[in-house]
Amino acid sequence: MLKVTVWNEFRHEQKNERVREIYPKGIHDAIASFLKDDFEVRKATLDEESHGLTEEVLHETDVLIWWGHMAHGEVDDVIVEKVKQRVLDGMGLIVLHSGHFSKIFKTLMGTSCDLKWREVGEKERLWVVDPSHPIAEGLGEYIEIEKEEMYGEHFDIPAPDQLLFISWFEGGEVFRSGCTYQRGKGKIFYFRPGHETYPTYYHKDIQKVIKNAVQWATPTKLPKPVYGNSQPIEDIKPKN
Amino acid sequence: MLKVTVWNEFRHEQKNERVREIYPKGIHDAIASFLKDDFEVRKATLDEESHGLTEEVLHETDVLIWWGHMAHGEVDDVIVEKVKQRVLDGMGLIVLHSGHFSKIFKTLMGTSCDLKWREVGEKERLWVVDPSHPIAEGLGEYIEIEKEEMYGEHFDIPAPDQLLFISWFEGGEVFRSGCTYQRGKGKIFYFRPGHETYPTYYHKDIQKVIKNAVQWATPTKLPKPVYGNSQPIEDIKPKN
Amino acid sequence: MLKVTVWNEFRHEQKNERVREIYPKGIHDAIASFLKDDFEVRKATLDEESHGLTEEVLHETDVLIWWGHMAHGEVDDVIVEKVKQRVLDGMGLIVLHSGHFSKIFKTLMGTSCDLKWREVGEKERLWVVDPSHPIAEGLGEYIEIEKEEMYGEHFDIPAPDQLLFISWFEGGEVFRSGCTYQRGKGKIFYFRPGHETYPTYYHKDIQKVIKNAVQWATPTKLPKPVYGNSQPIEDIKPKN
Amino acid sequence: MLKVTVWNEFRHEQKNERVREIYPKGIHDAIASFLKDDFEVRKATLDEESHGLTEEVLHETDVLIWWGHMAHGEVDDVIVEKVKQRVLDGMGLIVLHSGHFSKIFKTLMGTSCDLKWREVGEKERLWVVDPSHPIAEGLGEYIEIEKEEMYGEHFDIPAPDQLLFISWFEGGEVFRSGCTYQRGKGKIFYFRPGHETYPTYYHKDIQKVIKNAVQWATPTKLPKPVYGNSQPIEDIKPKN
Repeated sequence: MLKVTVWNEFRHEQKNERVREIYPKGIHDAIASFLKDDFEVRKATLDEESHGLTEEVLHETDVLIWWGHMAHGEVDDVIVEKVKQRVLDGMGLIVLHSGHFSKIFKTLMGTSCDLKWREVGEKERLWVVDPSHPIAEGLGEYIEIEKEEMYGEHFDIPAPDQLLFISWFEGGEVFRSGCTYQRGKGKIFYFRPGHETYPTYYHKDIQKVIKNAVQWATPTKLPKPVYGNSQPIEDIKPKN
Repeated sequence: MLKVTVWNEFRHEQKNERVREIYPKGIHDAIASFLKDDFEVRKATLDEESHGLTEEVLHETDVLIWWGHMAHGEVDDVIVEKVKQRVLDGMGLIVLHSGHFSKIFKTLMGTSCDLKWREVGEKERLWVVDPSHPIAEGLGEYIEIEKEEMYGEHFDIPAPDQLLFISWFEGGEVFRSGCTYQRGKGKIFYFRPGHETYPTYYHKDIQKVIKNAVQWATPTKLPKPVYGNSQPIEDIKPKN
Repeated sequence: MLKVTVWNEFRHEQKNERVREIYPKGIHDAIASFLKDDFEVRKATLDEESHGLTEEVLHETDVLIWWGHMAHGEVDDVIVEKVKQRVLDGMGLIVLHSGHFSKIFKTLMGTSCDLKWREVGEKERLWVVDPSHPIAEGLGEYIEIEKEEMYGEHFDIPAPDQLLFISWFEGGEVFRSGCTYQRGKGKIFYFRPGHETYPTYYHKDIQKVIKNAVQWATPTKLPKPVYGNSQPIEDIKPKN
Repeated sequence: MLKVTVWNEFRHEQKNERVREIYPKGIHDAIASFLKDDFEVRKATLDEESHGLTEEVLHETDVLIWWGHMAHGEVDDVIVEKVKQRVLDGMGLIVLHSGHFSKIFKTLMGTSCDLKWREVGEKERLWVVDPSHPIAEGLGEYIEIEKEEMYGEHFDIPAPDQLLFISWFEGGEVFRSGCTYQRGKGKIFYFRPGHETYPTYYHKDIQKVIKNAVQWATPTKLPKPVYGNSQPIEDIKPKN
């Protein structure tokens, strides 16, 4: 059974009553709840020792889900580096919503990951642009969310390996909302929705996408590639 | 259980004793043999009615494997069109070796699919360039084949969505040997090895790749996208 | 000086007064007008002999611009095949708007190229999602068109090599509106706007994009790759 | 006229007589020499103040060429960050050979950029796999280098946006030797050849590729995208 760790900053829920009403045990708990029937799920949060991401936990994690927003700067660089190594070694990584500005996403992308945003509770409609992809399995033509934060282009990311969803926003913007990337042996999926003041993670389609993405991000078991000085496999002719 | 149809031209095996010695019941039978424990496998060949690809067979096929070489021109355009529609509707397609010149591959690629070739039984080494991909699962750093036909660049294909293997050939050429493409709701994988005069389809690593590719090419069950004239979902303001 | 041929079906302009009012000499003439200072421009239309695309014309064309809509079926398959060969041999191709359903675009894409559409004169806003690309040179963050036909996802095309523009439509849809593809030695750009009943080709930003695209699609002068049977460049060891 | 800065670590040339014989004034001088007729060329090296990359120099650089090897660790992180910002703001970047392990390349890629290597002076043949690309302009089917260092897969980079060259090595390896990437408003080209102990930068084809790459990497002049909190462009309906 695939081992999933749901990481959440878990600060908004403690500071903001409105967020706590929606996610009384935290966003990580809401996400873990709909994953736990299909996966072996663990939770981890910022204020735990090592942010809950000890070497042992990381070693035993097949896919890591990341939600952060107001405290990106408090995530220890040493932990970020360890998470990055695990991704390059094969651990799947699913970055949600405001995680676009997390240290781990920025260091894996190599860009600013900046974007436009607006929080007025407008309508978002995520259109499926690649209906062949397993992450879109079970959806219709689009996902509609009555009220969400807006994220708008330009989104400063590398061109995704595969673009799965494009969002339409009521206020006039669009956004590349579902993006896959390969980094080393690891697979990464960025998924836009999930502002803390809306009940987005209770939306059935959003849950489907996250479940599908966990499955898709399953690590391969290939041996780590051999790097460094390397003997020739074939004969090399003497030259002048 | 995923339903796989292995299609083979099945001419070389009947005309050429050397090929028959290697594949006495045909290349399709050799491929079906290593797939049958994991999938529900059917076989089909050129000289059957409708090339063995009746509407019913196509309808019941989740993933189609295609091997052809000397008789591409004899494949009925009507059948090719039906296979293409099934791919666009979600059926997986795995095109092997000389299938690069099949009508079905060329029409899905939109290019000549031409290449360099040489048949002297030289060494081929397929390097894994994307160790994160499920089609490479179970392999080491490369697959080595003692004797194979050479295919060399330039290979006139669209840039693959994902490039998984690059071949090194003893005679000095390279080749993009494992390429994925999305077309409509369907997933396509082109895999280079498998000349009829070598026992390539008995090679354990080659078998692994084909098995992995079948799994990867599993159709999604999304409804067919709605095309054509479409009512607005949102209000449109009157304009001058 | 780069040689451009602007091809237009040129039927709507003759049958429909509203279209004729906007484009009195035809869409091709409007496009040729803003290109003629920078390029050597020729015009060609469906009802000319060989649709105006004789071998000589094609041979002397560096970049071909294609607009068609109501008469795709009347384009001779022989001419389509010749245009395709020229693209594979290096000629740039810019496909505009309803050209998505042209024979030439469909055969180069390998998919149905189907989409949603609606003609109520709604607002379109094309967001630049790759500000590094020369085709976007000179634009701001987006292009706004007061009234256009809507094209909506799912757009059944191969994943573009590069995605440059995403359209937002007033009625709630999005669209991949600027897509590049490489086919053989040729470069292809699909650009969405330009319905015949709106003055879109007089829009300064639309003109900029088309000019930039012509420049970008300049053919390379590499020799045609050598295909077919090929002697080894390196020694091949004798094998058992 | 495009402004190019050629950056070189310039250490091997001072420490190693063999290297000095080949590049008496440094690799940067050899590269600047073949660029100076077409571009406005400046040189910069590690041991200059700010590594020769002051804010003024960076501000006036359209395309930066980077060669480094034995002293990657001595490049100041502050300078690396400034170079990265300039790339995201549009400056082209051409990373040569052992620059794969430079701080600037690794931070823009987000991966280890590790690879196999061997220095025995074997033959390298770079096959053109995208003959439509302007960076390949003027080449034949391949570039042959009599003696070079080997770099072999797996090369731990993100899948390139465009793959232009694949190297064949005498000892049995292959390598993705010409890779383009877009990051922010900047265009990046990685080009493999150029070990310090071989006269690779005097090779006419290598010079062509670098010249073409400089041209291709020309910055666009689009305004920097607007990020951050953003007013709606369209009306947003009140919701419950």
